[in-house]
Amino acid sequence: MTLSIAIHLDYELARPMDILLHVHAAQIPEQRVEDQSFTLPPYEHVASVAAQDGIGERIWMRAQDQLIVDYTATVAINRILTPLGQLDRVPFHLLPGETVQYLMPSRYCPSDRFHDFVDATFAEPEGGAMAVAMREWVHDHLRYAPGASNGDTTAADTFIMRKGVCRDYAHLLITFARAAGIPARIASVYALGVEPPDFHAVAELFLGGEWHLVDATGMAREADMAKIGVGRDAADVAFLTAFGEAKLNTQQVSVVRLEEA
Amino acid sequence: MTLSIAIHLDYELARPMDILLHVHAAQIPEQRVEDQSFTLPPYEHVASVAAQDGIGERIWMRAQDQLIVDYTATVAINRILTPLGQLDRVPFHLLPGETVQYLMPSRYCPSDRFHDFVDATFAEPEGGAMAVAMREWVHDHLRYAPGASNGDTTAADTFIMRKGVCRDYAHLLITFARAAGIPARIASVYALGVEPPDFHAVAELFLGGEWHLVDATGMAREADMAKIGVGRDAADVAFLTAFGEAKLNTQQVSVVRLEEA
Amino acid sequence: MTLSIAIHLDYELARPMDILLHVHAAQIPEQRVEDQSFTLPPYEHVASVAAQDGIGERIWMRAQDQLIVDYTATVAINRILTPLGQLDRVPFHLLPGETVQYLMPSRYCPSDRFHDFVDATFAEPEGGAMAVAMREWVHDHLRYAPGASNGDTTAADTFIMRKGVCRDYAHLLITFARAAGIPARIASVYALGVEPPDFHAVAELFLGGEWHLVDATGMAREADMAKIGVGRDAADVAFLTAFGEAKLNTQQVSVVRLEEA
Amino acid sequence: MTLSIAIHLDYELARPMDILLHVHAAQIPEQRVEDQSFTLPPYEHVASVAAQDGIGERIWMRAQDQLIVDYTATVAINRILTPLGQLDRVPFHLLPGETVQYLMPSRYCPSDRFHDFVDATFAEPEGGAMAVAMREWVHDHLRYAPGASNGDTTAADTFIMRKGVCRDYAHLLITFARAAGIPARIASVYALGVEPPDFHAVAELFLGGEWHLVDATGMAREADMAKIGVGRDAADVAFLTAFGEAKLNTQQVSVVRLEEA
Repeated sequence: MTLSIAIHLDYELARPMDILLHVHAAQIPEQRVEDQSFTLPPYEHVASVAAQDGIGERIWMRAQDQLIVDYTATVAINRILTPLGQLDRVPFHLLPGETVQYLMPSRYCPSDRFHDFVDATFAEPEGGAMAVAMREWVHDHLRYAPGASNGDTTAADTFIMRKGVCRDYAHLLITFARAAGIPARIASVYALGVEPPDFHAVAELFLGGEWHLVDATGMAREADMAKIGVGRDAADVAFLTAFGEAKLNTQQVSVVRLEEA
Repeated sequence: MTLSIAIHLDYELARPMDILLHVHAAQIPEQRVEDQSFTLPPYEHVASVAAQDGIGERIWMRAQDQLIVDYTATVAINRILTPLGQLDRVPFHLLPGETVQYLMPSRYCPSDRFHDFVDATFAEPEGGAMAVAMREWVHDHLRYAPGASNGDTTAADTFIMRKGVCRDYAHLLITFARAAGIPARIASVYALGVEPPDFHAVAELFLGGEWHLVDATGMAREADMAKIGVGRDAADVAFLTAFGEAKLNTQQVSVVRLEEA
Repeated sequence: MTLSIAIHLDYELARPMDILLHVHAAQIPEQRVEDQSFTLPPYEHVASVAAQDGIGERIWMRAQDQLIVDYTATVAINRILTPLGQLDRVPFHLLPGETVQYLMPSRYCPSDRFHDFVDATFAEPEGGAMAVAMREWVHDHLRYAPGASNGDTTAADTFIMRKGVCRDYAHLLITFARAAGIPARIASVYALGVEPPDFHAVAELFLGGEWHLVDATGMAREADMAKIGVGRDAADVAFLTAFGEAKLNTQQVSVVRLEEA
Repeated sequence: MTLSIAIHLDYELARPMDILLHVHAAQIPEQRVEDQSFTLPPYEHVASVAAQDGIGERIWMRAQDQLIVDYTATVAINRILTPLGQLDRVPFHLLPGETVQYLMPSRYCPSDRFHDFVDATFAEPEGGAMAVAMREWVHDHLRYAPGASNGDTTAADTFIMRKGVCRDYAHLLITFARAAGIPARIASVYALGVEPPDFHAVAELFLGGEWHLVDATGMAREADMAKIGVGRDAADVAFLTAFGEAKLNTQQVSVVRLEEA
């Protein structure tokens, strides 16, 4: 599977400000960025730093007046796919050190408050089977509703209000998983099948010794996603962070399957 | 400065459960752990993993009935001390990649909500001078009040309620710093001067190209602290995380200055 | 049914302060206070004012050093009991004006966030039958757990954490009812059957043109409760509000059935 | 002062639903509604009930498809005006019973968390002088910023974020007042001087034995407001509550001074 990605961002800036962009498809073993272009007007201070867990990169820049970004990439996905239900839970003491942070509650994923619910609701199965049950619970109990959530919405809010968008689905699934002792993080991705086309966010669960992308919205398949970055929750993977007031003009994201010759 | 540290933990466990301990003084350039002992009854699954940012370690164990931990250490502190006020702010685009996560809001440190307050209150100075003003604001406006906060208390709560304990002081200072574009994390430490003696938590700010411990409670000096671990906020540096119900029996922490011969 | 009530409160006061007491059994048609005694040391400023909705009374006093209150009462309950499931929902436009406030979200009962959940979960029946289903949901999904909640705990928290005490049960039931368009308020009561004996709080729902006490904990029956006061939620019916720091020494509540001769 | 008021509401309704309107100028001693008209298409179930504290009225109706409401009124304001700073605080034990609820924390006004701040910040003066200091603090520390708050924003949020609209100003002032033992409620009003013209909300403080309108935004004077209704906070005085999804088409509010002949 090869994806052809194109984004166009256009923001108006109230004053000169620092901008952190996180839009590049990550160059990692499970996906190969075959070519990419990144064009932006001549800005000061363009610097690139590795993103969380060394997956992907973030770009610092200092911009003013208008921020226009065009990014295109061709990404070949070759991650190994295993049915989620067949994966084993990794006992705590065998977890790699860098996964331990993904057991902890985080800003949008207050997993420490969900122990009783998770114990009562997903009591029987373990590991991958439990993860499947969690994904299905989230899928079945939430309604996809653009505008129903905002930047303050946590998984606790979503659990109550029963609606949200992709990041809310991801946060709730991550929260359930952590409450059950499964390391879980968020992944921002470019994905086929997202309607309307946009940046997408899904959960990533550590099962069977590896990370696995899980989309509780049901919109995208693990094989059809190109990772941009990972983090504890949406606070870590914003595609654009402006250190000042920035007003959206237009934002376009296109992801299509590249037909092989 | 050499510190002699001794802790004794005694917890009652409702059932066999996994425990994550985070109490070892970190073996890092700025402090040398000269000797240490760690005794606990024979438990299953004792495993050690590196803690966040590679600073210190966490111990996994599986315990039941009663958890008794004794840890002692002698730690020579040799960190380079620079007056906080003389340090420069590092421009965003020159920040090392691993510090960027410490600019982001986190669970207990919702820095994104404090921009207007920070801009209005600490407008003039920059970098270290601003950090000094922030430390003083926190010190002067909060009242040290054991019992006034709990595990749900965020820096937003503390900002309103104007009281708390060391972790609340640290969270508020971290929140202010991030809102002003200074990377800030929490450090759990063993420190001289903490009254009553206990685990201690302070802010650590990235200024002048390095991390600097800052204790807004005024109880401990940077030279008198041995780091255990670091993280985004208290959610990352709990000294004990029990995956089940654990009841405190006793907990003793002693930190004294080792007189040189 | 006649109840014999006795309470003894003993608090230590940090400084002279105003105190608002709300412990008298209400003198209202559905219950007759046959005799009562209220003894307290000579305080300044003892004044009595009608409590919310004219049900019961609150006592203002100015006390210092130590607050000791003894209150006893004999209360004959003669409220008309109708099985909850047989009551009809009152259409909005026929609701008495004073019930409308009890449709609104309040501090501990954010009913506006539960519309989707309530619609999906209690979709079929209406009025009293729905109220029965709600009472049973709350009873079956919560665990009675003293210490699991505190003065900040809302029905949203309880819905997530799945545990609490009587006020949490009441708040969640009230929240569900309001979200379904049934006016609902809290009632503080003296009740037979509360274990351990204490002040008790239950929901009161407006169905069939009257208010009906509903105890989702299952501890007390509608016939065995003497009302103290009512309000939107626990913020309105605290039995003691101290305008300063007050430390509990002892607090005893006894409610027994008075055997008829 | 006589005000000429005209409003036009136009909403689209997803399905037939109950609507609660709260837009009539209250007929109370301090203001005389000289004439008014209220036109709406023939709806089912139009019923009027007294609003909170008997001030103003609410209209129930059942509407579908489109809700168009036109209301006009001429209101002569003749409230007695006393400079706020000259008013005395009413001691607790002399407060009328119906004002006691306005001492309690409410959903948007968590006054119980602000005791320390209020004690430290408004320590010196009492009663009206303190109220003036509070009004000025709110006015000086907040920035009027449409869009900065939403229906979840509490006074705690506003205190942190330092910006908001009229209801946020009112909530913060109410919160401060209650924390200092001054009964405080919200009043929804039609007011001269509101820019852009809209429904307006202000605080009302109980000082000197009477309620006094206080507008911390500084936009409107006490003499230039016609009360619609009062309540604990914005949850009680919404001008339109739809029990279903309603989409705003247009909403116009006009308040002008009627020139005397």
